[in-house]
Amino acid sequence: MQRRLARFAAARDWEQYHTPKNLVAALSVEASELLEIFQWLTPEQSARVMEDPESAHRVSDEVADVLAYLLQFCEVLGIDPLAALAAKMDRNEVRYPPKPPADGRDSP
Amino acid sequence: MQRRLARFAAARDWEQYHTPKNLVAALSVEASELLEIFQWLTPEQSARVMEDPESAHRVSDEVADVLAYLLQFCEVLGIDPLAALAAKMDRNEVRYPPKPPADGRDSP
Amino acid sequence: MQRRLARFAAARDWEQYHTPKNLVAALSVEASELLEIFQWLTPEQSARVMEDPESAHRVSDEVADVLAYLLQFCEVLGIDPLAALAAKMDRNEVRYPPKPPADGRDSP
Amino acid sequence: MQRRLARFAAARDWEQYHTPKNLVAALSVEASELLEIFQWLTPEQSARVMEDPESAHRVSDEVADVLAYLLQFCEVLGIDPLAALAAKMDRNEVRYPPKPPADGRDSP
Repeated sequence: MQRRLARFAAARDWEQYHTPKNLVAALSVEASELLEIFQWLTPEQSARVMEDPESAHRVSDEVADVLAYLLQFCEVLGIDPLAALAAKMDRNEVRYPPKPPADGRDSP
Repeated sequence: MQRRLARFAAARDWEQYHTPKNLVAALSVEASELLEIFQWLTPEQSARVMEDPESAHRVSDEVADVLAYLLQFCEVLGIDPLAALAAKMDRNEVRYPPKPPADGRDSP
Repeated sequence: MQRRLARFAAARDWEQYHTPKNLVAALSVEASELLEIFQWLTPEQSARVMEDPESAHRVSDEVADVLAYLLQFCEVLGIDPLAALAAKMDRNEVRYPPKPPADGRDSP
Repeated sequence: MQRRLARFAAARDWEQYHTPKNLVAALSVEASELLEIFQWLTPEQSARVMEDPESAHRVSDEVADVLAYLLQFCEVLGIDPLAALAAKMDRNEVRYPPKPPADGRDSP
């Protein structure tokens, strides 16, 4: 998928825009567009967002955008996102012993 | 990796906090923490961010956080992020014929 | 306050970092830091956040950061933020007649 | 302006959506919409964004949205944003003596 994204950008001459700084800005913008769908919903409404086909499509579409920019960002910087996550999980499983925290604020 | 994250949250009784709305807020916060590393850098400095071991570690760590929340968000809503991205790429390869746009603003 | 911020940045030779692009990235990062305080709270808990002196201080501090970057962004681009808001309110009072919307999503 | 925003929301029965958590999510979303305008621009292009009337209008409009949500957030929590900023500036003028930092990363 990273290769497909790289070919897609190269074929459109978009690589010139794809500095790490621009890609991370775009990632953050897309994450906010996903948040926008949920901003006025109650927690209960947010759990039912996939029941409506139109909002389900919108959510999937924004998930795709977030993932696309995350993969492109990782591609230009040579980061393996799954390896980064596995290393973080290794650390967190030691750092947070398996019992409920007081407020969950540090949830990874 | 999604299963490992789900087991990790369940073992710590964090599932109660993991509404889609909270997870997407956390995703957006982590994307901003990644952006924070780049906010004062020139485009050229941003391309060399992995050369310094400390900032390379910080970048990888934030990538892991973004991916962790994206996967957990997808898990609670039953979304397959790679399928969502493949569907979006199918649409974009038709929507944006392979030639450079005027400003690249719609780059996926 | 805009003049005080401008003098503060000039005295520290920080103006070189204060391109509109960098300032808006910083504004967005600070808004996310404010969001971070609320990300795992229920709506009810979020309404009581000022009752705890420590979190009240943290919220005020992040509000200050958001406002500081908003004012500095406006300063470098010559925008009057209160005039921009007044103009928007004039438009919105026409666009949204005073009755409750179906979902509030377009709330300004 | 805070009173005008409060009357506007009350007349539309939008107050029910305006929990601090929702308002800060909306603030963060609007800050990202402002960032979106700049995401693919070079630093130099970002400095000239007000020269084009259409993008100047778009920037002012998003500034208004950011300020509107910041003021509404402060209103529901009883925060005086200018007092919060003045207190922060008092602290920062002591914390950062007036000389250029190595990387400007802590710029307030």
